[in-house]
Amino acid sequence: MAAEQDLRLSGARALGLAEAFLATLAERSADAPGVTRASFGAGERMAHAEARAVAEGLGLVVTTDAIGTLMMTLPGRDPSLPAGVIGSHLDSVRHGGNYDGAAGVAMGLALAARLVHAGAQPARDLVILGIRAEEMVWFPAHYLGSRAAFGVLPADAPDTLRRTDTGRTLADHMAEEGFDPDFVRARSASLDPGRIAWFIEPHIEQGPALVEAALPVGIVTGIRGSIRYRNCRAIGQDAHAGAVPRGFRHDAVLAAARLAAGLDRFWDQEEARGSDLVLTIGEFWTDPARHAPTRIPGEVRFTLDIRSEDDAVLDRARAHLDAAIAGERRVKIDLGPGMRATPALMDRAIQAALHAAAASRGVTVMPMASGAGHDCATFAGLGIPSGMVFIRNENGSHNPDEAMAMEDFAAAFSVMAAATDRLLGVS
Amino acid sequence: MAAEQDLRLSGARALGLAEAFLATLAERSADAPGVTRASFGAGERMAHAEARAVAEGLGLVVTTDAIGTLMMTLPGRDPSLPAGVIGSHLDSVRHGGNYDGAAGVAMGLALAARLVHAGAQPARDLVILGIRAEEMVWFPAHYLGSRAAFGVLPADAPDTLRRTDTGRTLADHMAEEGFDPDFVRARSASLDPGRIAWFIEPHIEQGPALVEAALPVGIVTGIRGSIRYRNCRAIGQDAHAGAVPRGFRHDAVLAAARLAAGLDRFWDQEEARGSDLVLTIGEFWTDPARHAPTRIPGEVRFTLDIRSEDDAVLDRARAHLDAAIAGERRVKIDLGPGMRATPALMDRAIQAALHAAAASRGVTVMPMASGAGHDCATFAGLGIPSGMVFIRNENGSHNPDEAMAMEDFAAAFSVMAAATDRLLGVS
Repeated sequence: MAAEQDLRLSGARALGLAEAFLATLAERSADAPGVTRASFGAGERMAHAEARAVAEGLGLVVTTDAIGTLMMTLPGRDPSLPAGVIGSHLDSVRHGGNYDGAAGVAMGLALAARLVHAGAQPARDLVILGIRAEEMVWFPAHYLGSRAAFGVLPADAPDTLRRTDTGRTLADHMAEEGFDPDFVRARSASLDPGRIAWFIEPHIEQGPALVEAALPVGIVTGIRGSIRYRNCRAIGQDAHAGAVPRGFRHDAVLAAARLAAGLDRFWDQEEARGSDLVLTIGEFWTDPARHAPTRIPGEVRFTLDIRSEDDAVLDRARAHLDAAIAGERRVKIDLGPGMRATPALMDRAIQAALHAAAASRGVTVMPMASGAGHDCATFAGLGIPSGMVFIRNENGSHNPDEAMAMEDFAAAFSVMAAATDRLLGVS
Repeated sequence: MAAEQDLRLSGARALGLAEAFLATLAERSADAPGVTRASFGAGERMAHAEARAVAEGLGLVVTTDAIGTLMMTLPGRDPSLPAGVIGSHLDSVRHGGNYDGAAGVAMGLALAARLVHAGAQPARDLVILGIRAEEMVWFPAHYLGSRAAFGVLPADAPDTLRRTDTGRTLADHMAEEGFDPDFVRARSASLDPGRIAWFIEPHIEQGPALVEAALPVGIVTGIRGSIRYRNCRAIGQDAHAGAVPRGFRHDAVLAAARLAAGLDRFWDQEEARGSDLVLTIGEFWTDPARHAPTRIPGEVRFTLDIRSEDDAVLDRARAHLDAAIAGERRVKIDLGPGMRATPALMDRAIQAALHAAAASRGVTVMPMASGAGHDCATFAGLGIPSGMVFIRNENGSHNPDEAMAMEDFAAAFSVMAAATDRLLGVS
């Protein structure tokens, strides 16, 4: 085994490499305020090229699959062992922060650099993944890049999914970047669950949980699943407010408000039985070009975002919605196309390894659920023992004010290094 | 008494005069689509000048008071008797229809013309009123012009009310049109309830009630009062949907939806006890520049319009609102500036006279409530026996597609002529 002293020195150097990598990404995808790295677009392309350059500089074996997934391997001593995989995505939302996704790739590269510089070789391969297309603002599909790499994206996805800004298909955008939509259409796979011993995704936290707890690192217990509808409409009929008897009103606002208030009561009930549930109607609007204080509102558009760690709770939410919609007699409620993501529990052994590593390094961590989805859910959903490490982040994610301190990244790195030394069989 | 034959002939001629008057207004205030006659603006000025010209052509005694109210009098035989008054307003909403308001003045002029041409003199004065500034889209006050003429507008109105399009005060706009804001500030009056025997306002219907009943004319039973808030806000706090525990969410959409659904249940209760109530939330919107499907909505803007023929119901609605707002612990609901208009019942004797007149002329009419407010509420509120005659109107009011057929106007004219012959003491 490489000397502890060597690993400590190489660890410090590796953190410098991660910081420089992140700074380069921020500079080259700057789109004030914040950064923009569109899925299968210029910013993502740049980030993949930068990660590849860093990995090649470390002497890792670097390949890119037919859909652009970047695989950077530090070969282990025993090629027969399934690999340990660390990674995240390299795209961002528009005017987003620099760390959402990229911090996880930077962490993987830093962990590889630490081993390389110390001349330490793991028993099993360490694979760092740069995943494509995770941010749903570009293509409305959960975990697009990771599901595509495992061959579990629907075969028609390249031709039915359109990028929200360009209106062009996924196939178009993939081809434009030099990748092959037929890979998805054929449901081919470049990642094989049978060849992955475990997957860990380091990621900044979304919300202020670690900030409020004054802790640098969280160990994720599970990733909530969700039911999402982005284009719901309550369709009634416009009319002069004073002129129509109540029985003939088709009031879209009151119908949608009944639906919303009913979901709020459903939440009360689920909370009373101890269920995990989060319910958000982020958008709810009558059309300013059409509405008026004294006109019966004929249409409301709204969104629905329902999340739980428990698939049964999502089932009950869906049933509640169906009943509420069926109960509206004079207003048609059309939820439009929906998406459902299955909840994913994190592997207990991986969580235990991370907690033990944190204890050994004197880093105080806390267990926490992930409110938002992550590529890690794809891995967990395929039965791969999976874990996530959250890094404290001020000001939330998906905005230019994301703020991860390198001190917190270093704390997470320390935990990850200790945990992966054991999980990889570093000697 | 003038010969029946004379009155029939002069009636036909009077209808032609009304039609020509309305056509002139439409042409000279055209603002495609529809017409625009702003309160204390160019279109209203033109309409008053046209009405004056018609009245002078008929030999009526025409005066304009200090605030622009047009008074056109056919003197009666006995100057000691209080007058019979017929009238409505001559302003319109922006891109509105030609008949809302103007049809009532046209009706008054036609009724005077019928008597003049037949050489019939009433016992009491017949006064036709062209009222100013009824449409609230210009100055946000109920029945501005009629209240000002009676001296019951608040003294500060000229300096606190601003026209919504220009932002300038009522005083400015009155002075610009040659009128005297001090008349309002001093609460002077040009109309005296003690000198008005009765007031009848002919008006197009707002809604499809007569269209659906296939009847040309309605006799109004009462004018609903209202509580209105045009700038309500539910103020919570934006946050990432997945990250904040329920107890710390300040979700403006759910709070506003609870308020709306609660008002809907309040309506259920009032309906069960037989109350007259109409409740409209015409606008309800999260800000498109700020909202997102996965962000807890920090603000909702909405409007409230609550109407009833019964002031006690409005009181209960107000109390319900107060309790609902007090019950929201994590979202502040600010209704903003509100307006309240007192309901007005139509005089039973006037209604009976109109029904009797309709029966005598073979015109089938129906009793109906007025959902919207009208100047007539000012007269009724001052204890003047008041009535309204509604004329069938396709496509609602306050829009360029208003459609009143001259056949229906003629039917209403026939009813009005018979009723006012009796009420005026025509001989």
